[in-house]
Amino acid sequence: MSNIEDLVRSFGVEDGELGVGGTRVSLLALRAGGTPLFAYDRSQLTARVGRLRHALPDDVQLSYAVKANPMPAIVQHLSPLVDRFDVASAAEMRVALDTPTRADRISFAGPGKTDDELRAAIAAGVTIELESRRELRRAVAVASDVGVRPRVAVRINPPFGVKGSGMRMAGGPQQFGIDAEEVPEILPEIGEADAEFVGFHLFAGSQNLIADALIEAQRETIRLIAELARGAPEPVRYVNIGGGFGIPYFDADEALDVDAVGDALAVSVREGREAGLGGATFVVELGRYIVGPVGVYVTRIIDKKVSRGKTFLVVDGGLHHQLAAAGSFGQVIRRNFPIVSATHAGEAHDAEEAEIVGCSCTPLDLLGRNVALPAVDVGDLVAIFHAGAYGLTASPTRFLSHPDAAEMVV
Amino acid sequence: MSNIEDLVRSFGVEDGELGVGGTRVSLLALRAGGTPLFAYDRSQLTARVGRLRHALPDDVQLSYAVKANPMPAIVQHLSPLVDRFDVASAAEMRVALDTPTRADRISFAGPGKTDDELRAAIAAGVTIELESRRELRRAVAVASDVGVRPRVAVRINPPFGVKGSGMRMAGGPQQFGIDAEEVPEILPEIGEADAEFVGFHLFAGSQNLIADALIEAQRETIRLIAELARGAPEPVRYVNIGGGFGIPYFDADEALDVDAVGDALAVSVREGREAGLGGATFVVELGRYIVGPVGVYVTRIIDKKVSRGKTFLVVDGGLHHQLAAAGSFGQVIRRNFPIVSATHAGEAHDAEEAEIVGCSCTPLDLLGRNVALPAVDVGDLVAIFHAGAYGLTASPTRFLSHPDAAEMVV
Repeated sequence: MSNIEDLVRSFGVEDGELGVGGTRVSLLALRAGGTPLFAYDRSQLTARVGRLRHALPDDVQLSYAVKANPMPAIVQHLSPLVDRFDVASAAEMRVALDTPTRADRISFAGPGKTDDELRAAIAAGVTIELESRRELRRAVAVASDVGVRPRVAVRINPPFGVKGSGMRMAGGPQQFGIDAEEVPEILPEIGEADAEFVGFHLFAGSQNLIADALIEAQRETIRLIAELARGAPEPVRYVNIGGGFGIPYFDADEALDVDAVGDALAVSVREGREAGLGGATFVVELGRYIVGPVGVYVTRIIDKKVSRGKTFLVVDGGLHHQLAAAGSFGQVIRRNFPIVSATHAGEAHDAEEAEIVGCSCTPLDLLGRNVALPAVDVGDLVAIFHAGAYGLTASPTRFLSHPDAAEMVV
Repeated sequence: MSNIEDLVRSFGVEDGELGVGGTRVSLLALRAGGTPLFAYDRSQLTARVGRLRHALPDDVQLSYAVKANPMPAIVQHLSPLVDRFDVASAAEMRVALDTPTRADRISFAGPGKTDDELRAAIAAGVTIELESRRELRRAVAVASDVGVRPRVAVRINPPFGVKGSGMRMAGGPQQFGIDAEEVPEILPEIGEADAEFVGFHLFAGSQNLIADALIEAQRETIRLIAELARGAPEPVRYVNIGGGFGIPYFDADEALDVDAVGDALAVSVREGREAGLGGATFVVELGRYIVGPVGVYVTRIIDKKVSRGKTFLVVDGGLHHQLAAAGSFGQVIRRNFPIVSATHAGEAHDAEEAEIVGCSCTPLDLLGRNVALPAVDVGDLVAIFHAGAYGLTASPTRFLSHPDAAEMVV
């Protein structure tokens, strides 16, 4: 329970209810015109970026991966707080470009960029992170039509993976990036093309809670980039070493020791600068780590029933808004996200135990199994934590044509 | 491969390309304004309902579960072909009500109906399938405000489950329906309330390919309903025995023997009529079985790359449109859906083997592993079969803010 108690404390309790940004959730539900809703805590978001920057070396920039939560208000709020944005689609790029962040501080990664997306990115002056030799050629061809010299970086698929990642995105055969051993052949081609080469990007994996694994991956990443940089057509100005910092979704999870990661990164960056990357901007790119913990998903109990000795709370939300909490997005074993009674957040959660199920007609729609709660009833609100990243955008929002959820920054 | 060859034959090959409704997919992509797209074959849909009705007893009605595919053009097409619709949300109900099908032939099931949804359904004259005693009371209260007598059926959670279902939705403690042993207490309450009782609904599980398991479940369902009907406040007019007929998604799957199911159902229905359900309309409710096989998802190859000996085809679609094909919606083990080169559907699929991956920056976005294909290249179209049910609506369509997919009936 300690994880849950910490979460409740981080959001605060207002008149017995869970608060977000100092406002109790029942008022937020009225503001939204109903439930379910996602509420993101603005001051926690600011504080979280501050703590992260404190942990990271001073000469490392921070990029926000918009895909984690592309809500425009979130991206706008982060614009002055982070140095850069990374986008994964043209629509995300438009959200990032609408902030004060300059286009040359926006990168566009992803293995399936269409010609239309390349055209938009090149026209805007966004950095294309090249995922293949063919994409380089397409970018150059498109840029020639547009009449703008494209800014490109090479995304590397390294020979190594990273231990402990929720999703491994490097090592072995991959759709992501250009195999490290092929990079030396491609760099001269970039040099000869009418393109501005800025540097490299390497993203080894996501949702990692093991500091030592991240430290090792960052060290290897910087070494590899320093080595590959020797064949670069221009001095390397941009070294994006990815992110992959995890958040503790489940009770058994320990929070990542981000200070340890930052301290070790300072050493790796210094080594990298000594190894020829002296003039480069080093970038750590994070999404989930920044926004995941600052959001809650709030849903209302519609029915309470006992079936053969087991209590079920049926809520007006469900997997159509928070698929990850139902355990159906990338997880092998379903575990509960931290859940509390939002209406009675100030009370001990030891009066009853219930299954919290969504409103959809499928057994997949299980938000919490054997959840400890205070006495709750129909009409009460329930909150699921860690809903700031990959919530609505990673859920089948049209499932059974149920209504959408509101999103708000408080 | 035979399953895939049968599927290609069922859609047809036009000028070497896969056809849908007699039109080659490249023309459909132009009609849609681009890819990806879902194309549903109108004549296959009609034929499939025809074959199904032929297999089912003459005195059993067919209800279409709109949740499987709520596209209005599909629901309109099915309106004259099926007897009834079942809906799972107010939005699905509006789609069904917009067809010529009468409101009293529309049922509304689902464990989390809100008061607003109950109000809309009661105002429209749709049958409420009651999932709990509390829902009965809410429905009666709401109906009193509306000034319309509600039509209600009781959804039963039986003591038995059904073997072989992809998802088990009955037996043991469940959020679905009212436990069979509690039904005798609730029926008199319905009789005393100002409500029109029409009958029962029991849905034991979905996606079942084992005829004997379905036959056994239907027999037990009808026996249980006949027994419970003795306590009904009015003669039972409506006996919805659910569906759960599966479709063979994977190579090792054998198609369901629907004739065997139909023959056995005739016996069970006769027994049910003799046991007191003489005047009832028996209903089989199917969604996926009707629409699943008539749809294909068509996506275009954006990049073709070899990484460490493995060929990757990166397409412009992915898990954001067809999460089930990526194996992330309810499946424990990921297996390939049937996939072909739509551009070269007429050629032998033995020239190359590739991973077909979506455009999203996650290793989850795997549409096909080691897929056998003819020689393919960037720009070619790829088709994934069995995309008629739980496609867009069961996928995270906002993932990475990628563009939506078109849907068309051909």
